Amino acid sequence: MEPQRAYHEVLSLMRNASDLQSAIALLGWDQETYMPPAAAAARAEQIATLSAMAHSILTSDSAQRLAEGFAQSLSAIDGELSEFEKRIVRVFIRQVQQAVALPEDFVRRKARVTTLAQERWKQARARSSFALFRDDLATLVELAREEAQHRGYSQHPYDALLDLYEPGMTVHMLSPIFERLSQATREILDAVKASGVAPDRSILTQHYPAQKQLEAARTIIEAMGFDFSAGRVDLSAHPFCTSFATADVRLTTRINEHDLRSCLFGLIHEAGHGLYEQGMRAELDGTLAREGASMGIHESQSLFWENIIARSEEFWQWALPVLQSHFPSQLAGVTPKQMYAAINVVEPSLIRIEADEVTYNMHIIIRYHIEKQLLEGSMTVDEVPEQWNTLTRELLGIEVPDDAHGCLQDIHWSFGGYGYFPSYTLGKLYAAMFRRALFEAMPEVPELIGQGKFAPIRQWLKDSIHQWGRTLDPAELVARITGNALSEHDFVEYAWQKVWRIYGSA
Amino acid sequence: MEPQRAYHEVLSLMRNASDLQSAIALLGWDQETYMPPAAAAARAEQIATLSAMAHSILTSDSAQRLAEGFAQSLSAIDGELSEFEKRIVRVFIRQVQQAVALPEDFVRRKARVTTLAQERWKQARARSSFALFRDDLATLVELAREEAQHRGYSQHPYDALLDLYEPGMTVHMLSPIFERLSQATREILDAVKASGVAPDRSILTQHYPAQKQLEAARTIIEAMGFDFSAGRVDLSAHPFCTSFATADVRLTTRINEHDLRSCLFGLIHEAGHGLYEQGMRAELDGTLAREGASMGIHESQSLFWENIIARSEEFWQWALPVLQSHFPSQLAGVTPKQMYAAINVVEPSLIRIEADEVTYNMHIIIRYHIEKQLLEGSMTVDEVPEQWNTLTRELLGIEVPDDAHGCLQDIHWSFGGYGYFPSYTLGKLYAAMFRRALFEAMPEVPELIGQGKFAPIRQWLKDSIHQWGRTLDPAELVARITGNALSEHDFVEYAWQKVWRIYGSA
Repeated sequence: MEPQRAYHEVLSLMRNASDLQSAIALLGWDQETYMPPAAAAARAEQIATLSAMAHSILTSDSAQRLAEGFAQSLSAIDGELSEFEKRIVRVFIRQVQQAVALPEDFVRRKARVTTLAQERWKQARARSSFALFRDDLATLVELAREEAQHRGYSQHPYDALLDLYEPGMTVHMLSPIFERLSQATREILDAVKASGVAPDRSILTQHYPAQKQLEAARTIIEAMGFDFSAGRVDLSAHPFCTSFATADVRLTTRINEHDLRSCLFGLIHEAGHGLYEQGMRAELDGTLAREGASMGIHESQSLFWENIIARSEEFWQWALPVLQSHFPSQLAGVTPKQMYAAINVVEPSLIRIEADEVTYNMHIIIRYHIEKQLLEGSMTVDEVPEQWNTLTRELLGIEVPDDAHGCLQDIHWSFGGYGYFPSYTLGKLYAAMFRRALFEAMPEVPELIGQGKFAPIRQWLKDSIHQWGRTLDPAELVARITGNALSEHDFVEYAWQKVWRIYGSA
Repeated sequence: MEPQRAYHEVLSLMRNASDLQSAIALLGWDQETYMPPAAAAARAEQIATLSAMAHSILTSDSAQRLAEGFAQSLSAIDGELSEFEKRIVRVFIRQVQQAVALPEDFVRRKARVTTLAQERWKQARARSSFALFRDDLATLVELAREEAQHRGYSQHPYDALLDLYEPGMTVHMLSPIFERLSQATREILDAVKASGVAPDRSILTQHYPAQKQLEAARTIIEAMGFDFSAGRVDLSAHPFCTSFATADVRLTTRINEHDLRSCLFGLIHEAGHGLYEQGMRAELDGTLAREGASMGIHESQSLFWENIIARSEEFWQWALPVLQSHFPSQLAGVTPKQMYAAINVVEPSLIRIEADEVTYNMHIIIRYHIEKQLLEGSMTVDEVPEQWNTLTRELLGIEVPDDAHGCLQDIHWSFGGYGYFPSYTLGKLYAAMFRRALFEAMPEVPELIGQGKFAPIRQWLKDSIHQWGRTLDPAELVARITGNALSEHDFVEYAWQKVWRIYGSA
């Protein structure tokens, strides 16, 4: 088939799959924000039906024919497709290959198992009983191993799953980085401990009325550049960002009236994701490329704003007066330096989602070790709790009192999301690498942050990262921006600098 | 094919089409309630894509084969399908026939024309310039005539369009009913005029704070039995009811702080629709039968609650104290009788959606005459404004000052909704017929209303009407409940009684 005609057929298939995915995303958003409780069963059916339709578009004969045709010819096509069009086609080929890789019977089996397993995980966590979840976990691990076989890999079965969330990522690349990161983190934690410094966090846990918190957080993300004419903010039990178009990006947050951090940093984090989605080229609408380059790159954008910007001392030179206008009595007399120290306390803790910037990665490394060994068959499901507790003792120096605060704390395994956890730490490493590149390109960044002038920073992120959506692979994107391959160096240096500023110079 | 196997294939096709329609309905609901403004274009694309998919399911070879097979065999199938299953199959056959009737080229043409025409109608109404809309209207009428040819009819082209909204309805049935209703309405209006009575409406236009209005209206629809665990209420520019499952029914309302009626009666009206949707058998979920028997029957349910219940004097014996607890100063000293008179003022006016119960039908009869004549070709598009003004003078005794208050006031023609208007009056006639049947079955109804005990009334409506969804035709439903065919008698008698109570006995 003539390349331009084939390309337009690709676009037409992608339009259908993409519009279905947008509808599925809206069904999901609504479920978490406004859906009446009795509607859960019907909603699950609707999402399942539309998901099956999107899957059948990508596994159709015509999709496979187009993908195979282009896979053989794309590198030889010259001039007939633009570079942009070729990138769109590559995304299409990858999506078709991923959809085709799993037999229908396997997809149905996995859907059934994970639906039940999620319910059982909830019960098991509530009762802190690993035994309740043990059989499900065993089935889920077997499914993950089977999925790795279906998807294929050249070195390690875990590679097949890592690649789903982080295209091109392998155990071979990741293990040494995580090893060095773990070592460096231990050294930082030792230094923090030795300092004897314990910043006062009490200002964070005054009473902050919900409505005021939301107003303050909205003001701040608006200053970051989140476009409310092309997005909105709602409440949900767990914060998330979703989008149905570059012009329709939804953030959610939750509010704790006795903790200033939950709503504020939560919404800044989600707005970081949201700026990525709003910053993609409008041409990506209706294609399957209107996605982050990877989960790790997406997370780098939320963490860039949440941590690198909003947990900097400069940020609080600007943001503290903004917050003080909403909370004059609670924040009376507080200085940016005090706030900076309070929100950057480094302290080993049990729950991943409550961890600070530095110790957080240890939580990921624990999960990485366990997932990798389960996948390669060098650890049994029954060994998980003990392994978890041992690793927590080794890496974080704390004791796990029960499985609810240990290996049962996260939902990911119950929905079959093996290979997902590393994205969180990759996001931190990418963010630190992008930070260095940004600071080199624009040395005035700290000053801009201190004045609340975020537009040049956002524009740099948009030009460098956001606009491309999924048309660039993470490694290509990182190389373009930083000239380097992924490493932990920038993050470790950034962490040391921060720890020194708070703990060393006190 | 063996009937049960064919039936299950029908169910499977309907599941896909129905889940797509639920997603389309959610996309539409979100657009009117929460969608950020910049997302309009992407949303239109998404709805168009999913609508085309739903259409292609119903026009697929397998759907047509199943529909044709059953159309030939259904009456002969005995015992192999239950009565319920046969009714579901009939709904499927009708849906397939309707989907297949229009050539794809026509569907695309109509979509393009109506999209542009709606924009132009908005401009034309804003400037009160029929000339601006004239050419679009001409194209739209031609499309409606073409659609009637595609759909087919035995007597009058308008029948083909009436049948879309009111299965089985024809000009032959409707014209004499509308003629008698028009005559009776004129007599009632003469009596009202002659009475010289003018009830005081000033209590309705005090200042009623928005939040309190919403709370009061929610309290009242909760008492009616609207289930908030399977539904919710939001704000939108134009009130509507939509649903994505029997357990997920959404109402919207709007609030005018200087008119107590807008939010209250608007929400009671939508809750009447909502109770219909919540009252359908759960087995109808995932089929195409989870719809009202017709637009007229659906409207009968909203009008039953809005007018027959909530505009009765008994209702205000219960509801006035409820409202007074929300608005103690505004409603101090008001009696149920005063409220009853204020909300039931009969007075000819120009705008359909602001008309009272009695004059409202005249607005519909005007539109019916014009649509019918446009369809049969006995009136040209250029004659519409003059015809409109003449009919308004004849039927309502008032002069139309400009087209914005005349033939440009409604959106329906611009989206190609010819044949829809009669549903509104049919709803009134059905509601009055159901009222008589209910009062005969349960003579204690007025007393129950006065006590705010709506559960037995709701249950009667559910048993008689709601549970069936679209599995019964309107004529069959009405005959089952009332023993009669559609007529205007009950409505005319009901209107005379009310007018006598307010204007005659004063």
